[in-house]
Amino acid sequence: MSQPNQQQLAQKYFHTRAQTVELMKPLSTEDHLAQPSEEVSPPKWHLGHTTWFFETLVLLPGLTNYQQFDAQFPFYFNSYYEGLGERIDRHSRGTLIRPALEKIYTYRTYVDAQMEKLFATDLNPKQLQTIELGINHEEQHQELFLTDFKKILAVQPFQAPYKADFQESFPSNSEVPKFIEISEGIYRIGYAGKEFCFDNEQPAHKVYLQPYSIASKLVTNAEWLEFIEAGGYQEFSFWHAEGWDWLKREQIKAPLYWFQKNGEWYRFSLAGPVLLNGSESLSHISYYEAYAYAEWKGLRLPTEAEWEVAQEQFKWGERWEWTNSAYLAYPGFKTIEGPAKEYNGKFMINQMVLRGASIASPSGHSRPSYRNFFHPHFRWQFTGLRLAKNID
Amino acid sequence: MSQPNQQQLAQKYFHTRAQTVELMKPLSTEDHLAQPSEEVSPPKWHLGHTTWFFETLVLLPGLTNYQQFDAQFPFYFNSYYEGLGERIDRHSRGTLIRPALEKIYTYRTYVDAQMEKLFATDLNPKQLQTIELGINHEEQHQELFLTDFKKILAVQPFQAPYKADFQESFPSNSEVPKFIEISEGIYRIGYAGKEFCFDNEQPAHKVYLQPYSIASKLVTNAEWLEFIEAGGYQEFSFWHAEGWDWLKREQIKAPLYWFQKNGEWYRFSLAGPVLLNGSESLSHISYYEAYAYAEWKGLRLPTEAEWEVAQEQFKWGERWEWTNSAYLAYPGFKTIEGPAKEYNGKFMINQMVLRGASIASPSGHSRPSYRNFFHPHFRWQFTGLRLAKNID
Amino acid sequence: MSQPNQQQLAQKYFHTRAQTVELMKPLSTEDHLAQPSEEVSPPKWHLGHTTWFFETLVLLPGLTNYQQFDAQFPFYFNSYYEGLGERIDRHSRGTLIRPALEKIYTYRTYVDAQMEKLFATDLNPKQLQTIELGINHEEQHQELFLTDFKKILAVQPFQAPYKADFQESFPSNSEVPKFIEISEGIYRIGYAGKEFCFDNEQPAHKVYLQPYSIASKLVTNAEWLEFIEAGGYQEFSFWHAEGWDWLKREQIKAPLYWFQKNGEWYRFSLAGPVLLNGSESLSHISYYEAYAYAEWKGLRLPTEAEWEVAQEQFKWGERWEWTNSAYLAYPGFKTIEGPAKEYNGKFMINQMVLRGASIASPSGHSRPSYRNFFHPHFRWQFTGLRLAKNID
Amino acid sequence: MSQPNQQQLAQKYFHTRAQTVELMKPLSTEDHLAQPSEEVSPPKWHLGHTTWFFETLVLLPGLTNYQQFDAQFPFYFNSYYEGLGERIDRHSRGTLIRPALEKIYTYRTYVDAQMEKLFATDLNPKQLQTIELGINHEEQHQELFLTDFKKILAVQPFQAPYKADFQESFPSNSEVPKFIEISEGIYRIGYAGKEFCFDNEQPAHKVYLQPYSIASKLVTNAEWLEFIEAGGYQEFSFWHAEGWDWLKREQIKAPLYWFQKNGEWYRFSLAGPVLLNGSESLSHISYYEAYAYAEWKGLRLPTEAEWEVAQEQFKWGERWEWTNSAYLAYPGFKTIEGPAKEYNGKFMINQMVLRGASIASPSGHSRPSYRNFFHPHFRWQFTGLRLAKNID
Repeated sequence: MSQPNQQQLAQKYFHTRAQTVELMKPLSTEDHLAQPSEEVSPPKWHLGHTTWFFETLVLLPGLTNYQQFDAQFPFYFNSYYEGLGERIDRHSRGTLIRPALEKIYTYRTYVDAQMEKLFATDLNPKQLQTIELGINHEEQHQELFLTDFKKILAVQPFQAPYKADFQESFPSNSEVPKFIEISEGIYRIGYAGKEFCFDNEQPAHKVYLQPYSIASKLVTNAEWLEFIEAGGYQEFSFWHAEGWDWLKREQIKAPLYWFQKNGEWYRFSLAGPVLLNGSESLSHISYYEAYAYAEWKGLRLPTEAEWEVAQEQFKWGERWEWTNSAYLAYPGFKTIEGPAKEYNGKFMINQMVLRGASIASPSGHSRPSYRNFFHPHFRWQFTGLRLAKNID
Repeated sequence: MSQPNQQQLAQKYFHTRAQTVELMKPLSTEDHLAQPSEEVSPPKWHLGHTTWFFETLVLLPGLTNYQQFDAQFPFYFNSYYEGLGERIDRHSRGTLIRPALEKIYTYRTYVDAQMEKLFATDLNPKQLQTIELGINHEEQHQELFLTDFKKILAVQPFQAPYKADFQESFPSNSEVPKFIEISEGIYRIGYAGKEFCFDNEQPAHKVYLQPYSIASKLVTNAEWLEFIEAGGYQEFSFWHAEGWDWLKREQIKAPLYWFQKNGEWYRFSLAGPVLLNGSESLSHISYYEAYAYAEWKGLRLPTEAEWEVAQEQFKWGERWEWTNSAYLAYPGFKTIEGPAKEYNGKFMINQMVLRGASIASPSGHSRPSYRNFFHPHFRWQFTGLRLAKNID
Repeated sequence: MSQPNQQQLAQKYFHTRAQTVELMKPLSTEDHLAQPSEEVSPPKWHLGHTTWFFETLVLLPGLTNYQQFDAQFPFYFNSYYEGLGERIDRHSRGTLIRPALEKIYTYRTYVDAQMEKLFATDLNPKQLQTIELGINHEEQHQELFLTDFKKILAVQPFQAPYKADFQESFPSNSEVPKFIEISEGIYRIGYAGKEFCFDNEQPAHKVYLQPYSIASKLVTNAEWLEFIEAGGYQEFSFWHAEGWDWLKREQIKAPLYWFQKNGEWYRFSLAGPVLLNGSESLSHISYYEAYAYAEWKGLRLPTEAEWEVAQEQFKWGERWEWTNSAYLAYPGFKTIEGPAKEYNGKFMINQMVLRGASIASPSGHSRPSYRNFFHPHFRWQFTGLRLAKNID
Repeated sequence: MSQPNQQQLAQKYFHTRAQTVELMKPLSTEDHLAQPSEEVSPPKWHLGHTTWFFETLVLLPGLTNYQQFDAQFPFYFNSYYEGLGERIDRHSRGTLIRPALEKIYTYRTYVDAQMEKLFATDLNPKQLQTIELGINHEEQHQELFLTDFKKILAVQPFQAPYKADFQESFPSNSEVPKFIEISEGIYRIGYAGKEFCFDNEQPAHKVYLQPYSIASKLVTNAEWLEFIEAGGYQEFSFWHAEGWDWLKREQIKAPLYWFQKNGEWYRFSLAGPVLLNGSESLSHISYYEAYAYAEWKGLRLPTEAEWEVAQEQFKWGERWEWTNSAYLAYPGFKTIEGPAKEYNGKFMINQMVLRGASIASPSGHSRPSYRNFFHPHFRWQFTGLRLAKNID
């Protein structure tokens, strides 16, 4: 486990906390409240929840005589921690007119001041680790805020932007796509370093891989358009049975946020609606769609081990990349002791692993061993795909 | 049909519009957005919808060269008028971060200014009638705003008040309750006057009534407590089959907003939580509950005709009173011509009639022939009951 | 209340019981089990339920030392009597492979034999009345069996007939349709005779009617086709708001059992599929459809009082006829004492009254005061409509 | 791919077909029809579906001038093959009063006679392989029939047995349980033999395993009782988040078919209700329960590779054993060409792998590489669990 340096950690704490507030600057008061679907949280909830995490897991157990800010806040701001008491139904977060936004900001300021007091004392390794977890947790919510707010804006017919100059893609890159070959053998995956990682990235362990090759670039919008035009969304044989049912029930015909107008394809972005740019990396697809595309191509998605082993040879970080690995425990996996035990382990069922990071991820947040995970039908994250194939 | 005087109408218009704004004064910006259940609309939606009504039914057809405020507003603010175009799903009104509250106020000001222009011209009877309908419509939304906002506050664990001095009951009245006897015969009900009424109150017509008697006072909280303590919510034989299913499914054990704490009964009110006052008129019950209570008493609810014939002999206006009449057309009923045809007639199925008015109704809004109507399971209005019995 | 003659009642009992068995003769063993939707009961359930009624309400309280046939049968065969114990969920009746059909027939024989014993004793008026109720109850289930089994057959793509010569209409009648005029005044409705009636038909009482006229004939298939061809199912303004939602959700485009093949309209009947005959009376429509048709015609449905007052002047009994009356208690209504209290009264909410009888009703079962009732969306009964209009 | 011998295959075909009929012998006609939940098919459907498989995949393409038995049968008996046309909704199989059971038996006889003709000709390898697939398919349905019929019986309050002497467990075995140790290294899993296997068992391939140990015996009823008594169903920390939601929503407190009576635990079996025998292997648990039990023990479930590598050292075949492996494609996996492509591959999402076989599996049906799979909440198969642990 990591041994964070207290002074550096304090610095990172205040930087991360400020960054969250910075991200919300373009929002009006009203913008903080909406929740168009269960998986999306209102911005004000993210502000409160990330603060509650430090108050509950760090200040209450760690600061003598710590005075809880408000005894009703945990009910609002606990996300899913069964061990930390009753909480509001996830789909009701959008009804929270109280506490007022202003009061949540007072909460943030209060907790930060108390954290400052705490940092002035000598912290033990367990405390430092929990603070580090809280910082990484807040970074995850920075990303979630951006993708949640994108969905909030997208359901408004006005199609207002978050920021008119927000870039959702890397600057375009003229590199010719190729397939990188990896030979068979035993490889080591998982986090083996000395910095922070989540419990689900450990232990580092050996895996045996058959020979394979993996694309150096992500699938682009132009390539996806070919799939659409070839009838990919109308031909059952590319799809999982559950994917096909999902597609028919939800009437899915294109990636999330794509729409047609006067014969042209557009997509809604955090900068507002934009004409589809074929050379950009595709985004906002479900695992079902990623799988169907690979089937149509006669190729496949990489496993998470294949991705991790090959990642040094390609650039990543623009899209979360669906893999063909279910989200399960690594051999020898141990959850964190204490309340944070519920952080990752209890979600290891019915979800697929994504690797990489996205344009919305805070800088430095991810790493090659990072495991993100979602249910196969979700599309509101910046999800993309990279193809792989077997070598016989 | 009424022939409103243009000058008086203009005065009433501006008074009503100002009244709506006055009602929202205690609210913060965030308070305007929440929608905890489908039947409840966010305050900002009421502000926009009542304005849209005048813009669409009065200004657009009536003011030469009228410039629509925003072409996207009708999508947000049309409630249920199929004839007036596509509109947002009713249960999604709570996601409307845009248009911003401020912009809706600009919309109100703009429309009021245009109405001022219109009032400066000579209006024809049809125009005057539509404006009068719009004023009465806005009054209905003033009442809905209060009951909707009560529900919005009630789902917040903070239990904040709307106004600390809001009175939900008439000053208590020491009159001894009695039963008023009405003899059998042919009576006339429905609106026969020259002022405004809704289409569903007409035509005035004859009905034959058997002899009956009707209570001079509403059922009180203390009386309802007796019903609870006698096991009224546990004994199927007082209930409709659908009422019993509803009660079990929703785990109903008391009127809406009642709760127990340390052995005492409280209710949530627009002034915040208050200790239950036995002598006050009961409120927030469904038709199913009203019916079950009457069955338990060996009595019954009055029909709407019985209520209307007897109403001169009792004081009303504190609670909307459930009757045992289904909401159906009067003999010879005609809907209004034009878009307002959808105002009342298309709801004449599966709803029960309520008579009277409530503490939340604007002064002067109701009249003896006024017909309110709700599905039998709804409880968020200030609903109460008055008993009746047959005379053999 | 009726004072049935014991000997005649016994005769009617055995006749009715035999008639039920006769109706099931065309069925194979398997035919007795299916339940394609909640409102439809499997034939074997009807066989058991009607028998359970006599065992539970007549034999158990009335025959000394009566030995219950099987203590588990009430769980299966109680329909909705809360006062008579736990029972299988209504939608699970189709899972009842046990008790075997053969055993249910043994149950019928057993109960009939015990009833024979009972009839050999001197019965008191209350007993005679309960037996009479049970006979009328069994007649209702004979009709339900036919309409339920029609739905069971209709969901089978094989479209097998119940009986190849089953007639669903009266022999065609060349009478020219006309409107019968009724003048305003006080009329008496409800059952005032000395024979059997259900509690909901009483007390007979006075009503005041405005002048009206009512069609001498039912709407025909040909007339309904005109409505379809005029776009009646596509134009919202003829429909209740709930009817329009229902139509869109269920994709309703024609009466139940109608289908098109090679450009011709057919309907599924108890004699199998038949080409639509324009001159026959329309059947299998919901109240929503009946109402929309009348709106389209600029006419209306009669109320139940109007129907009852005028019925002597027209032939009825071919279709249950939707009225514009909600199913509510008559003034002075009293439920039966004892378990049969739950027979009618507890359903007096959210249902509309139908008058007349249908081709599937046992001969002699109905009468002018008979009140049938269904939720407005149901269509699996032989429902039709007759138009009415106001006279100014 | 296997190269089956034509004569042996013919023999196996007729044996398997006869076996299916044999299994249904204890059933009455009515027993063949019920469908208490979507995953359960009525016995008559299994009879028809297995026959349809041979008609559609073998006879229609393979026998010159083959006369289809009935053109409507495919609609009833196609399970989920999108490539083979429209079909009845899965949850409506229980409404199929037609085709009559007798007619389905005629269908079976007809198809068997045609197959006899086909076997008299010289079949090519592809034909032989498809027949072999059909035989294995029918064996799978023999097992499904037993588990489906168990559920059909279990929802009947009569709790009738299928066969009074049906044994659901192996004869009890006095072997002392132990943990078998397997050392780390590269192992080969998947089917590499020359007999039949399903496409999902191939290709055989190398995997790297960390050192582990695995229990020689399955968890018993007595051990599960300890879990119940220790509050295992009340403590969230043993459960996946989705498992915990499932448990609360479905009010799960014990394995399926377990019930208490007079303080004793019983379970419903194919021989009727029996007193719980502590030494028997546990059955009818979901993956969620298996996982929670392992968590409670501080151990884990084996992966499918660990199970396959170790299986030679323990006896299996009594219970399908949940593993901690998601059902995904093996490296290099290829689906069968043609309609049977839909057999396995399209289900590779959101399901967990089970290994072994069960007391209901036909003799010789399974093998060490066999991969069964179900959604994690299903419990109606004879599912059990075997524990594993890491060796540090």
